[in-house]
Amino acid sequence: MQFDNALYTDGAAVTMNSFGNLFRITTWGESHGKAIGVVVDGCPAGLELDETDVQKELDKRAPGQSEIVSSRKEIDNVEILSGVFEGRTTGTPISMIICNKDADSSKYEKIKHLLRPGHADFTYQIKYGHRDYRGGGRSSARETAARVAAGAIAKKLIERHGIKVIAYVKEIAGINTLKVDYSEIYRNNVRCPDKNVAKKMEQAILKAKNEGDSVGGICEIVVLNVPGGLGKPVYNKLESDLGSAILGINAVKGIEFGAGFELAGMRGSQSNDEFIVRNNKIATRTNHHGGILGGISTGMPIVMRAVVKPASSIMKKQRTVNYKTMKQETISVEGRHDPATIVRFPPIAEAMVAIVLADHMLMAGKINPDALK
Amino acid sequence: MQFDNALYTDGAAVTMNSFGNLFRITTWGESHGKAIGVVVDGCPAGLELDETDVQKELDKRAPGQSEIVSSRKEIDNVEILSGVFEGRTTGTPISMIICNKDADSSKYEKIKHLLRPGHADFTYQIKYGHRDYRGGGRSSARETAARVAAGAIAKKLIERHGIKVIAYVKEIAGINTLKVDYSEIYRNNVRCPDKNVAKKMEQAILKAKNEGDSVGGICEIVVLNVPGGLGKPVYNKLESDLGSAILGINAVKGIEFGAGFELAGMRGSQSNDEFIVRNNKIATRTNHHGGILGGISTGMPIVMRAVVKPASSIMKKQRTVNYKTMKQETISVEGRHDPATIVRFPPIAEAMVAIVLADHMLMAGKINPDALK
Amino acid sequence: MQFDNALYTDGAAVTMNSFGNLFRITTWGESHGKAIGVVVDGCPAGLELDETDVQKELDKRAPGQSEIVSSRKEIDNVEILSGVFEGRTTGTPISMIICNKDADSSKYEKIKHLLRPGHADFTYQIKYGHRDYRGGGRSSARETAARVAAGAIAKKLIERHGIKVIAYVKEIAGINTLKVDYSEIYRNNVRCPDKNVAKKMEQAILKAKNEGDSVGGICEIVVLNVPGGLGKPVYNKLESDLGSAILGINAVKGIEFGAGFELAGMRGSQSNDEFIVRNNKIATRTNHHGGILGGISTGMPIVMRAVVKPASSIMKKQRTVNYKTMKQETISVEGRHDPATIVRFPPIAEAMVAIVLADHMLMAGKINPDALK
Amino acid sequence: MQFDNALYTDGAAVTMNSFGNLFRITTWGESHGKAIGVVVDGCPAGLELDETDVQKELDKRAPGQSEIVSSRKEIDNVEILSGVFEGRTTGTPISMIICNKDADSSKYEKIKHLLRPGHADFTYQIKYGHRDYRGGGRSSARETAARVAAGAIAKKLIERHGIKVIAYVKEIAGINTLKVDYSEIYRNNVRCPDKNVAKKMEQAILKAKNEGDSVGGICEIVVLNVPGGLGKPVYNKLESDLGSAILGINAVKGIEFGAGFELAGMRGSQSNDEFIVRNNKIATRTNHHGGILGGISTGMPIVMRAVVKPASSIMKKQRTVNYKTMKQETISVEGRHDPATIVRFPPIAEAMVAIVLADHMLMAGKINPDALK
Repeated sequence: MQFDNALYTDGAAVTMNSFGNLFRITTWGESHGKAIGVVVDGCPAGLELDETDVQKELDKRAPGQSEIVSSRKEIDNVEILSGVFEGRTTGTPISMIICNKDADSSKYEKIKHLLRPGHADFTYQIKYGHRDYRGGGRSSARETAARVAAGAIAKKLIERHGIKVIAYVKEIAGINTLKVDYSEIYRNNVRCPDKNVAKKMEQAILKAKNEGDSVGGICEIVVLNVPGGLGKPVYNKLESDLGSAILGINAVKGIEFGAGFELAGMRGSQSNDEFIVRNNKIATRTNHHGGILGGISTGMPIVMRAVVKPASSIMKKQRTVNYKTMKQETISVEGRHDPATIVRFPPIAEAMVAIVLADHMLMAGKINPDALK
Repeated sequence: MQFDNALYTDGAAVTMNSFGNLFRITTWGESHGKAIGVVVDGCPAGLELDETDVQKELDKRAPGQSEIVSSRKEIDNVEILSGVFEGRTTGTPISMIICNKDADSSKYEKIKHLLRPGHADFTYQIKYGHRDYRGGGRSSARETAARVAAGAIAKKLIERHGIKVIAYVKEIAGINTLKVDYSEIYRNNVRCPDKNVAKKMEQAILKAKNEGDSVGGICEIVVLNVPGGLGKPVYNKLESDLGSAILGINAVKGIEFGAGFELAGMRGSQSNDEFIVRNNKIATRTNHHGGILGGISTGMPIVMRAVVKPASSIMKKQRTVNYKTMKQETISVEGRHDPATIVRFPPIAEAMVAIVLADHMLMAGKINPDALK
Repeated sequence: MQFDNALYTDGAAVTMNSFGNLFRITTWGESHGKAIGVVVDGCPAGLELDETDVQKELDKRAPGQSEIVSSRKEIDNVEILSGVFEGRTTGTPISMIICNKDADSSKYEKIKHLLRPGHADFTYQIKYGHRDYRGGGRSSARETAARVAAGAIAKKLIERHGIKVIAYVKEIAGINTLKVDYSEIYRNNVRCPDKNVAKKMEQAILKAKNEGDSVGGICEIVVLNVPGGLGKPVYNKLESDLGSAILGINAVKGIEFGAGFELAGMRGSQSNDEFIVRNNKIATRTNHHGGILGGISTGMPIVMRAVVKPASSIMKKQRTVNYKTMKQETISVEGRHDPATIVRFPPIAEAMVAIVLADHMLMAGKINPDALK
Repeated sequence: MQFDNALYTDGAAVTMNSFGNLFRITTWGESHGKAIGVVVDGCPAGLELDETDVQKELDKRAPGQSEIVSSRKEIDNVEILSGVFEGRTTGTPISMIICNKDADSSKYEKIKHLLRPGHADFTYQIKYGHRDYRGGGRSSARETAARVAAGAIAKKLIERHGIKVIAYVKEIAGINTLKVDYSEIYRNNVRCPDKNVAKKMEQAILKAKNEGDSVGGICEIVVLNVPGGLGKPVYNKLESDLGSAILGINAVKGIEFGAGFELAGMRGSQSNDEFIVRNNKIATRTNHHGGILGGISTGMPIVMRAVVKPASSIMKKQRTVNYKTMKQETISVEGRHDPATIVRFPPIAEAMVAIVLADHMLMAGKINPDALK
């Protein structure tokens, strides 16, 4: 081996698999290991909860639902192992497990020394030296199922306080959503709120798939009924924490809030949102600020958009390196892969956003015990 | 008062004024208070350090340097109060203080109940109930001086390991940089690496200023010579931590890495960066991934861009609300304000990026004691 | 209900079920739930590990081994679910599960509103409102099995660096150990390093048991071959972190280091340990400081002692309150309880101490990748 | 140099100079540096506060008050630099500074290579390589002034909720307090609640001082009116957090709660505190549990005791090592030292306990905004 850093083994961890402050999740598990799971710590006692609450969110991200996603049959059955008694949370950690089935590691054996372009094979190898290469191991998108399970609890907690998180695909392969009808999102295979545009997106995905290729896109996330005053003013600004949450999902390479990158070309007189009195409360006329000022929620809808890169696993031949021989080779990533990972992204984004908001609701002392029952 | 949440006082903090894990900063201070400052905890013992190292970074962000920035004369003289002995760090916390001078609070007195559009007045008021309204208090851009001071130490630490952080203005008011010459950045008033474009940017800023308005822009940050293997694979991905750092700076509303939002329109065969062997090491041919794969550095340059909204304080009349009377009024924010806060942004961005990298270098056990002397 | 705080539900958590900084454990599970478990985050990649390493530590704390412990047949079979590949750790979180068997909840049903003296029934009830009362739920000593499992990994990690943690019973029911022979500890039922004294202790325990009562004791923990320089000098002193770890185990009501409480009656000229040169290294002649000065290890053996209160569950009748009726009643805690919980304490203490030391070894950058294989 | 670990420089910090979760303090400064100070983060907005609140606590620990303490004239004048506006806290970090005066470093120059027995000279040297040896640098008892300043704010916060922390000297040089009269504590020089015993203690201290020696002792801390339900049930038990806080103070080598080490000789039927109904609330008849069950407060007084070792700096000759020459030498620590550091200990203990309780009050959501004004 002639790796830069080849002999390096990472010495420190700093809760790299935990996320959140008061509402805190710790995920574990590899794609082709025995199981994956999550421990949710900090959920208040008294919240009604059973496995169906979690299962319904998991079902939203499950693959094997249409021609445009992987044909892998994953039935993600979640089991709650602790923290719930007589149908309500007890305030103790909620451990959830999803057993792995239908894992076929044979395809990975033969390419285990070939670095798949766009994947974490290379960085895991230089960081850890020893890695579980089967199915991407810990870097697999499969890890996000654990986030979705945890997010289901966060969602239930904040929904009891009226907060609603909605994520949908806004753009795929350059095709943009023209209108937003929330009820459409889960009626089509691409999670698009625009029925007609959804069809075009689906065609673009199929075209790419047939060419052995993949497509990227943009997901928009809206949070309604957020109380004002959430967020910390300096280093745990809502944008920082939401940004960290979303940028921590595989394949995300950018995030913007409110008017986002368009602000670069605007004047202050355009971008400033004037304050008005609406229903006897202070609000803003427009929402270029995306519901957050000075890192703290204003009570207007929080609006953000994340860019998801095209899936890295493609059939098309690409050049790469065998890190054992240090020789240049070519690779064609076979297996049952998604040509458009973004269509599975919305429930994951909703989960992470819900976790951040549950955490900030707790930090702001805004959880009402009476709302939990 | 008829505020939504009007009586609310935030109960919890969770180190909201600290940032970082092993290399950790805690900032304090208000714009028109006695002083601002920072405590840097976790800098290894033995690093050569004196006040000139810090002062030179502070001077880069200091206002009062040209027609296009505020005429406020802030001489940010830093004093190191602890943690350095005989010219070298001792491993104990480094406390730095910058005394406030030239603060004129009178202009704030008369608008103290008027919510300035685009500012944190409203959110601080509903979050804390009691706030220091003078000069924006803690939400003032002045807070960033403390970050720059802390960043100076982080910079020195990582530069001793060969890492170089460079930030510059890439776009202002729709005008784009055409070429990048690092040596130009601090030769013009807009921190642009393109001499000719810099002049156009300056003109656009002056035009906005004369119209009582302000402009936004985009800052690009490049990190060279980053060792492979930095970053955590799940929740402290480099994108998450860098994103959190940059999104935590006032006025930032978006961040992207590598090809960023352009990835939405790309195919996997375009966006995947093929692996090659270069100088007997593994590298990638292109850098759409911006130096980070799976949350971990590849050794390629880290590239990111942040959008900075137009300055909120403008002379132009805007409608707003007086939160005492709940009446609609108009406001024209007088005072010595910057029409393009983005020109002060690069040293702040460099500081925050350096802090994140120093932290990850420590977390990865890659600090070499011999390099510190 | 007329509880003080009766309607209170705890709103915040702050990782209450996680422990450690870089080497970090998160435990979950209730005594009579489906399972208990732990996620170990921060173990470096490359450490040889399989289930037998963990099982052998669990077997040391297992009950059902003699007349003086509970007759409950718990076979604590651990399963590793993630983080280990081809017999070595991968640096990703190690999730372990121990399924619960042989749980008989019927005895708890009838006393569910009676507060057991010395137990956490009352405090859990006022804190959470809703609790799993079966077998003590989360407050059961059973939770410590998860700590022992995590500690087994920590132990292996530090043993590879020569560090050895040894805990034993020093005192039971006023009977003191007279000599210390480490090889004796697990040859008797009371975990005493003194063969003859062990017999007397066992008799004292049986006597208490026959009287429907229980006994307390003192456990001594010694750590050999600790490198100098571990520990933080102000708030994460070794005494603080070890103290927090040990005081966090059920039933512990005190801890002392080195000469401990005897220092109250000593003079400085007696308690100060003079420095000497031994084997060409600096050491101390005596060890009243217990291996720690200024919160940092000196290289001398770390010595500490913890007091474990008598088991709370006793057959003897005690007066108590029914919190539903608020009436005074009497209780006799039936079931298969230990008359001397301290005899199970040494492996738990070893586990927690090993976790603290693994954490400090990581924090000090002293883990040697070559030692892991 | 032939130190074990001689070339070692500590690589990692993990907020070693911060303490607390929601109510969080970060201290800085060396004994003979320019100043010492603290940043208090997490104090809720709206609390009445000015410098006299802090100064009065600092005055309680100030030396130079009698024959039995050091003759060093330290006037610890605190200045609040941020976080307070118009006499009330704003929720932003409160930075406090105490400038150093009257520091005489000359005596330290000549013994800078001689390891003072019982001091942190040796461990700082092996940990950091480079240290500020003047006056003990960061390991000086002077650091505790910053804790007392922070504790003054915590105290005010919890006192507004009725909680009272009282610390006093219970034992010095084997002489025990016989009765407890809180009003006596600050009427004598040894902080003893027993007037007559105080005189005997003072004589014992003077005797030791005249012999060039020092004495140790025990401090008892009582917290009254603690609401039930504070504390976390597993790893942030009240005993863990209070233990960590107290064991983090220089010279403390042990802590016990309630009946403490006496529990080793007790039976369960003696140590269990029976529940009773008192004033229509549930309480316990006795308080062997020291106000904490299962890590959570019961509402009974919290009672703990800490042992403080004899002061390490004594005039009596001791053998030691010169770490430059590795030769055996003798040392007699001159200067103005306290023969009984324990007499300064009570206000420091009160501060740390108040910080822990303020933190847990915040974590339990029990801060009442109306109580702050």
